[in-house]
Amino acid sequence: MTRAPVVRCTDLAQAVALRDHCVDHLDELRRVFAETTRYGRLETVRTRLAGRHAYLRFVCTTGDAMGMNLVGKGVHHVLNEHLLPRFHGAELLALSGNLCTDKKPAAVNWVEGRGKSVVAEAVIPPDAVHEILKVRDVGRLVEAHTFKNLVGSALAGCLGGSNAHSANTVAALFLACGQDPAQVVTSSACLVTLEAEPDGGARISVSMPSVEVGTVGGGTHLTAQRACLGLIGVAGSCDADPGAHARRLARVAAAAVLCGELSLLAALCSNDLIQAHMALNRAK
Amino acid sequence: MTRAPVVRCTDLAQAVALRDHCVDHLDELRRVFAETTRYGRLETVRTRLAGRHAYLRFVCTTGDAMGMNLVGKGVHHVLNEHLLPRFHGAELLALSGNLCTDKKPAAVNWVEGRGKSVVAEAVIPPDAVHEILKVRDVGRLVEAHTFKNLVGSALAGCLGGSNAHSANTVAALFLACGQDPAQVVTSSACLVTLEAEPDGGARISVSMPSVEVGTVGGGTHLTAQRACLGLIGVAGSCDADPGAHARRLARVAAAAVLCGELSLLAALCSNDLIQAHMALNRAK
Amino acid sequence: MTRAPVVRCTDLAQAVALRDHCVDHLDELRRVFAETTRYGRLETVRTRLAGRHAYLRFVCTTGDAMGMNLVGKGVHHVLNEHLLPRFHGAELLALSGNLCTDKKPAAVNWVEGRGKSVVAEAVIPPDAVHEILKVRDVGRLVEAHTFKNLVGSALAGCLGGSNAHSANTVAALFLACGQDPAQVVTSSACLVTLEAEPDGGARISVSMPSVEVGTVGGGTHLTAQRACLGLIGVAGSCDADPGAHARRLARVAAAAVLCGELSLLAALCSNDLIQAHMALNRAK
Amino acid sequence: MTRAPVVRCTDLAQAVALRDHCVDHLDELRRVFAETTRYGRLETVRTRLAGRHAYLRFVCTTGDAMGMNLVGKGVHHVLNEHLLPRFHGAELLALSGNLCTDKKPAAVNWVEGRGKSVVAEAVIPPDAVHEILKVRDVGRLVEAHTFKNLVGSALAGCLGGSNAHSANTVAALFLACGQDPAQVVTSSACLVTLEAEPDGGARISVSMPSVEVGTVGGGTHLTAQRACLGLIGVAGSCDADPGAHARRLARVAAAAVLCGELSLLAALCSNDLIQAHMALNRAK
Repeated sequence: MTRAPVVRCTDLAQAVALRDHCVDHLDELRRVFAETTRYGRLETVRTRLAGRHAYLRFVCTTGDAMGMNLVGKGVHHVLNEHLLPRFHGAELLALSGNLCTDKKPAAVNWVEGRGKSVVAEAVIPPDAVHEILKVRDVGRLVEAHTFKNLVGSALAGCLGGSNAHSANTVAALFLACGQDPAQVVTSSACLVTLEAEPDGGARISVSMPSVEVGTVGGGTHLTAQRACLGLIGVAGSCDADPGAHARRLARVAAAAVLCGELSLLAALCSNDLIQAHMALNRAK
Repeated sequence: MTRAPVVRCTDLAQAVALRDHCVDHLDELRRVFAETTRYGRLETVRTRLAGRHAYLRFVCTTGDAMGMNLVGKGVHHVLNEHLLPRFHGAELLALSGNLCTDKKPAAVNWVEGRGKSVVAEAVIPPDAVHEILKVRDVGRLVEAHTFKNLVGSALAGCLGGSNAHSANTVAALFLACGQDPAQVVTSSACLVTLEAEPDGGARISVSMPSVEVGTVGGGTHLTAQRACLGLIGVAGSCDADPGAHARRLARVAAAAVLCGELSLLAALCSNDLIQAHMALNRAK
Repeated sequence: MTRAPVVRCTDLAQAVALRDHCVDHLDELRRVFAETTRYGRLETVRTRLAGRHAYLRFVCTTGDAMGMNLVGKGVHHVLNEHLLPRFHGAELLALSGNLCTDKKPAAVNWVEGRGKSVVAEAVIPPDAVHEILKVRDVGRLVEAHTFKNLVGSALAGCLGGSNAHSANTVAALFLACGQDPAQVVTSSACLVTLEAEPDGGARISVSMPSVEVGTVGGGTHLTAQRACLGLIGVAGSCDADPGAHARRLARVAAAAVLCGELSLLAALCSNDLIQAHMALNRAK
Repeated sequence: MTRAPVVRCTDLAQAVALRDHCVDHLDELRRVFAETTRYGRLETVRTRLAGRHAYLRFVCTTGDAMGMNLVGKGVHHVLNEHLLPRFHGAELLALSGNLCTDKKPAAVNWVEGRGKSVVAEAVIPPDAVHEILKVRDVGRLVEAHTFKNLVGSALAGCLGGSNAHSANTVAALFLACGQDPAQVVTSSACLVTLEAEPDGGARISVSMPSVEVGTVGGGTHLTAQRACLGLIGVAGSCDADPGAHARRLARVAAAAVLCGELSLLAALCSNDLIQAHMALNRAK
């Protein structure tokens, strides 16, 4: 999980010194950060400069928590106890300088990741393509994928939007499992690949670089939401291996997205999207 | 509301003819579209070509409904009854070719809009800046805004993300009012401006080009959600002026976002974001 | 060609009035614009608001000129003679408010176009695929295209970059023909599609929405550059059909890009890119 | 400098193994890379996966060369001699998989950099603001900057385009100094900040993460271009400190861009852009 405060330095030279300090004294920053948390750990700080304004992207592990509060608290502490006292005249403009990036579509998350980064793959045998997906020719499925998810999204100027409807799946899972629904914005970023296999089957993958999930904190303690996490086997923190529950939840999200992508693409090919919506979507 | 099927033509010449046909016969397309709906109306069709693949972005009004199903049904009908029979060899690859764009961050929505486009402005008197927002100097507020929402988001490579946390507000409102939570992805796109007024007050605005909301259909009939819509005075369709309820809901969303932006920026300036989160955010 | 000044209005209400005025009085704006030019013509004004700041995107035809100066002069005149006197308190902040958008990668150009929008297509017979492109299996060519130009560019977060190297071709043509080399940034935006034909041939297309070219003005009068334009048959203005030369030059650019795309993809498939560079690229 | 081939693995598991191998055996990869070059050095390999397709972004230093050929040659060698023989069934789809990213606007370059990353800052005293830039009030200059370079570019959906006209300066310098004019696309990415100083002066900065320049190779040996490099004191390779010439050229580019930004912003404020163009830009 990441948090990126913006610090206004006295001039560019000080901003460069601040950036270098974070590289050279990373161990000390980690120690100060650790004073505020049992589960979290500062991994690295990646700094970008806009003139004398330094954006310090703190990258942390956060156990089974999604970790925004944990990281925010630790970063606040590192700034006040370590960095700001050492850089006279530097001022914290905002604890989040939007390079984090939280809840806005952002290239930095797409490129560097945020939360969990997951890639999932499945090979669908020809039988399943024909009988279950009701697609006669896998080439037709690949074509729909290519011109919708790749070419269409490129025409639309999408960022992290090379998919059919990952946000639907992510939103449903987030609501059911007590995640932050505003983080659907970034967590649903997803690139799908789909290839025809030599035997007439299909190979599909989803790559999701910024799945922001946790199994403790936030809405995870609510009764219904905790029950859903329990069904998946990831309620609460994983004592044996802290972080394992959250990672598993991210993998489940990616697997669900993969299924949803396959399903919608097949429905578009057999052209029964509208009929299905009309039959199933309306309140009686 | 928009929907953009992708049609594979026999070659580029046919794709150009299809595009021109939609311009030249718009009235006829409107008539065919109208056969499927009482409230919806086809406004225009904006076509973009990727070689022989035509992406027809149908732009429609949808009364008080968010309108995805309504538009999907109408577009399906126009394709099957009017367009495809006239263009021999053209094939519908997918009813949605991702130029719509639904539930993915997309430049086309940011530039051309989708759903409602809303701009809201407020002038905050100096007293309120000092007493309520607890900000001593409005210049400090403008600086935090500039280097977080404008410069930070530019560094992060945001698309429609020049804001502090519009997605939080939009997600909350969408859940409360029975909207589609996956559409938070696109509906939360927002650009904030903040200026110091000569008297020491502040002028703030939010520009949100793609707020996808409705007051009929979807989750709006659920008891709690309908009650919330009722509180705002927009439950169900507006008989006197169809569409007025949905438009009002979009304006309420923008106003709420504006307030949330001001609040968070002020909290970042007075540096009590962490304290507030620690005090208020944790389950007892 | 487009130019988008940013005007700061007294408040949002005035900005809305300004926007509406440009729609309601378009003919009058056209008349005023026409006072400054013989060849240019104002087509429309698309306004976007960031609170009280109005960005007026003037869209004009410019005959055979690329047209930036022509449009800038006309917009300046419309502002000073017509708009600003009618909107008391409104102030021109900058004649270009960056929504034009000139010489920066911008979604607005990708979505709405700027300069000429060109789509070109070619069908390559199987013989040419094998003998000239030295590609044994067209499927291999499609695969390289898909995972480089579509998937790779999506991973990279490209905007208008679904191509192999359109900028190389555009830059070469722009230098040879006296175009503005800084406009390579926007003019090279290009989406390529490549499909296998049933007979083993290939179908390729390029879609370039913002090719900014002219055959009069700028560097087109220089001796060598004018000679190159002459070779293509488009030197100077086309008296019989003003604008025809510039349009043709844009089509030539797209055709050249198409060839370059095919050539590089084939070289990547046969894996002789490095050998070719080593053999041909170095100064003796 | 970077180059990112795309390798199709047999399945996702192999792709993960390939990614991990590049991390675990980096020293060996460096040794193999070094067999092809005297000046270049492999720094790291950052891999991103799209399912079973691995995009290996090789990041290298290249001495005083821009380095595309050097890196391409080395990457080709590492693939053929080391990686592909170890991963049975993996196939090189393209030596460049577009995650490099060369000559297309790409978020990956904006976030991670390519070529040289430069930040420059200048403080302009009040006298110079008034007498040379002809701007009465520095607040006016800041306002033009904010609503053009930051807000306008955000509205336009720019990527790396928070500047007034960096591409003009970069294109001019690249042509004069024998650089690759197609790389203006990526090298001109630039974020400007401008602040009012307490004394009425201005503080301006430019941040340019991907300036792709060299002082040997390419067009640098041409007579006129070499003379220009000589004027700057960076012709050829720097024997005492290989790479110092190229780094200096990148800094000169940033400094020139900074000046050009200041000049155009001032011209927009004093509103004499059009007059200047009319007086100076036309061929006599």
